[in-house]
Amino acid sequence: MMNWETIFADRAGRMKASEIRELLKLLEQPDIISFAGGIPDVNLFPKAEVAAAYADILGGGQAAVGLQYSVSEGYKPLRDWIAGEMAKIGIACSAGNVFITSGSQQVLDYLGKLFLSPKDTALVTWPTYMGALGAFNAYEPAYDRLTPLSNREPGSYVQAAEAKGGRVKFAYCVPEFHNPTGVTMTRAERDWLLDLAETLDIAVVEDAAYQQLRYDGETVPPILALDLARHGGDIEKTRTFYCGSFSKTLAPGLRVGWVVANSEVIRKLVLIKQAADLHSSTVNQMVIARVAETIFDAQIAKIRKAYSHRRTRMLEALATHMPSSVEWTRPEGGMFVWVTLPKGMDGAALLARALETVRVAFVPGKAFFADGSGENTIRLSFSCASDAMIDEGIARLGRLISAEMPAAA
Amino acid sequence: MMNWETIFADRAGRMKASEIRELLKLLEQPDIISFAGGIPDVNLFPKAEVAAAYADILGGGQAAVGLQYSVSEGYKPLRDWIAGEMAKIGIACSAGNVFITSGSQQVLDYLGKLFLSPKDTALVTWPTYMGALGAFNAYEPAYDRLTPLSNREPGSYVQAAEAKGGRVKFAYCVPEFHNPTGVTMTRAERDWLLDLAETLDIAVVEDAAYQQLRYDGETVPPILALDLARHGGDIEKTRTFYCGSFSKTLAPGLRVGWVVANSEVIRKLVLIKQAADLHSSTVNQMVIARVAETIFDAQIAKIRKAYSHRRTRMLEALATHMPSSVEWTRPEGGMFVWVTLPKGMDGAALLARALETVRVAFVPGKAFFADGSGENTIRLSFSCASDAMIDEGIARLGRLISAEMPAAA
Repeated sequence: MMNWETIFADRAGRMKASEIRELLKLLEQPDIISFAGGIPDVNLFPKAEVAAAYADILGGGQAAVGLQYSVSEGYKPLRDWIAGEMAKIGIACSAGNVFITSGSQQVLDYLGKLFLSPKDTALVTWPTYMGALGAFNAYEPAYDRLTPLSNREPGSYVQAAEAKGGRVKFAYCVPEFHNPTGVTMTRAERDWLLDLAETLDIAVVEDAAYQQLRYDGETVPPILALDLARHGGDIEKTRTFYCGSFSKTLAPGLRVGWVVANSEVIRKLVLIKQAADLHSSTVNQMVIARVAETIFDAQIAKIRKAYSHRRTRMLEALATHMPSSVEWTRPEGGMFVWVTLPKGMDGAALLARALETVRVAFVPGKAFFADGSGENTIRLSFSCASDAMIDEGIARLGRLISAEMPAAA
Repeated sequence: MMNWETIFADRAGRMKASEIRELLKLLEQPDIISFAGGIPDVNLFPKAEVAAAYADILGGGQAAVGLQYSVSEGYKPLRDWIAGEMAKIGIACSAGNVFITSGSQQVLDYLGKLFLSPKDTALVTWPTYMGALGAFNAYEPAYDRLTPLSNREPGSYVQAAEAKGGRVKFAYCVPEFHNPTGVTMTRAERDWLLDLAETLDIAVVEDAAYQQLRYDGETVPPILALDLARHGGDIEKTRTFYCGSFSKTLAPGLRVGWVVANSEVIRKLVLIKQAADLHSSTVNQMVIARVAETIFDAQIAKIRKAYSHRRTRMLEALATHMPSSVEWTRPEGGMFVWVTLPKGMDGAALLARALETVRVAFVPGKAFFADGSGENTIRLSFSCASDAMIDEGIARLGRLISAEMPAAA
């Protein structure tokens, strides 16, 4: 769930608590057309299959296993299944390279715990997934801006980190259908990132939460696959953490994600989990394994079809209704379109106006910037929107932006 | 699950990796009689009720809620139910004082994250729950020894903490049927602890994982109940965190625990969870709520009866088979008996011998000591043991200890 208070009151925020409370009240109104939540559509969850898996496991000989404590690294058959899926996308690995967590958010927290001391630097794109910033912030890092294919001297990252009192520890990215921008990193950008990481001797955190949600365009190899190819297929020599999730493909309510990496760091992460929450829900891991083994490919086809339609519909609506000074991304997958408003227009102020007048919700972009910039950006999610909601909501938003433009100019 | 490598290779450990590996192999032998694992008996889990709850929730109108993302503070009906249970034991509170976590282990991690900076001091009993030490260790604290009713000057805790470079942040205890000792804190000890906490202005972490498992003796009010009574029943003025768990009463595999405290710190913990793993499994919280509302009291009666019998049987077997130089606790509940071996006898060495010769397993006590002392102690768990296992296993252990005694003398 979106934490609106955090969004509005982010580090660069200038809204008063009372203003935020008023907006929160409006957000709950039932007539609001919301493009805000970055959540999957409940109507696409494999409900019957999940229910059948719980019934099978708890009604049979596996009930005792499912209800008991289990090992911190995760349910072995699920780790085996994931290793098999990883091989299909160029990441040859074994179960010893796979670690199950309570959603991929937990991987980000553990990587923060493993790598970041206060004042250390994490490299992130401007903008980036706000949940990653939230996870890392607990460890009081500094951030530096990752701009793929930039000509910036690698040494300058080191100097900037030292000036802040720490070291560069990792680069975090969402290479596929980025949250919030929807943009996919090119092959050249991924190679550039690996070059940089090797030069700086830092880890790469590849957040692949949306990786299965490609609707068109060419597949680009995962960063971990490229890292593997640089080391003769030996995953023990790689520096990339591939973070996967079942939250966007099967169901987030079970809280099952995973990370693939060299087995030495996997062992460290397992010890972190053992101290932090022992292990993820045993029965939920067994259910995810059962459902994934049975219907994963069909489920992916089903959600791709639904989300692809909504993505296309939203892009068409934006083309129809937005004034020419507004720009937006054309995602090849995922859940989000990133809109750049005319310069000087403030996304948070626009949201306040949109809620009060045209009854449309979205996320102001600055919540995704480690430096609190990006004021003239907003994120639109199409994952839960019907055709009618998209057509009407984008039309209303287009009219509002057009009306606000003189004031912003 | 027990992490044997950690137990053998704890901070004060002197065993080689190769020795540990050999012991780990022995532990897996099927003929070992184990009193080691501190886990509940799978045969006592309410399997049918849990299965029925999943079927009801996922087969009905609540499936969409159960499979979707949810709020970080936890499922409201479960928080309401817990608030009602708390009232029964003298802790009047509302859902706003209750926060659901992925097992109570996660509460300990979050309290470490909230309170402990490196070099800060946590007060813990010698011995204490090793999982608490594991959770806190991630934040690099120092420890000081908590000895209830000791005459130690409160100022000396402050001075010791300052000498180590930090401040005293909280006192952690397991007041009921302590893990590992099985001992229950008296009313006077609880009052002493609250006095100390008030004098030092620190928090009290009350780990109540075994609180429902009382088999005989007089109930003592929870520390939070005493804290509340000192403040006219106003929970917002209390300093105690009551940490509860469904792992010992319903089923650990669902990973659902909770913490009760003043709402200001609860809000801080909720923000920590949002950044760390968003929320605990939605459907699991709903299932726990359903099962708890339906059968909690009957389930508690069932497991009390079974564990009480095993506790008594183990105490009888110890009285029959142990040499007179061996001492042990007489727990009024919980899962553990704590055995003090003759001085000079080493629990870890005894375990190695016990595995190799009489095929009995237990946990060497020094794993529970923050300073690595307690060498001549061992923890025996009776929670999963049959009468025959108890009689035979304790007899074998008694013979072994008797045989080892000359060497230890």
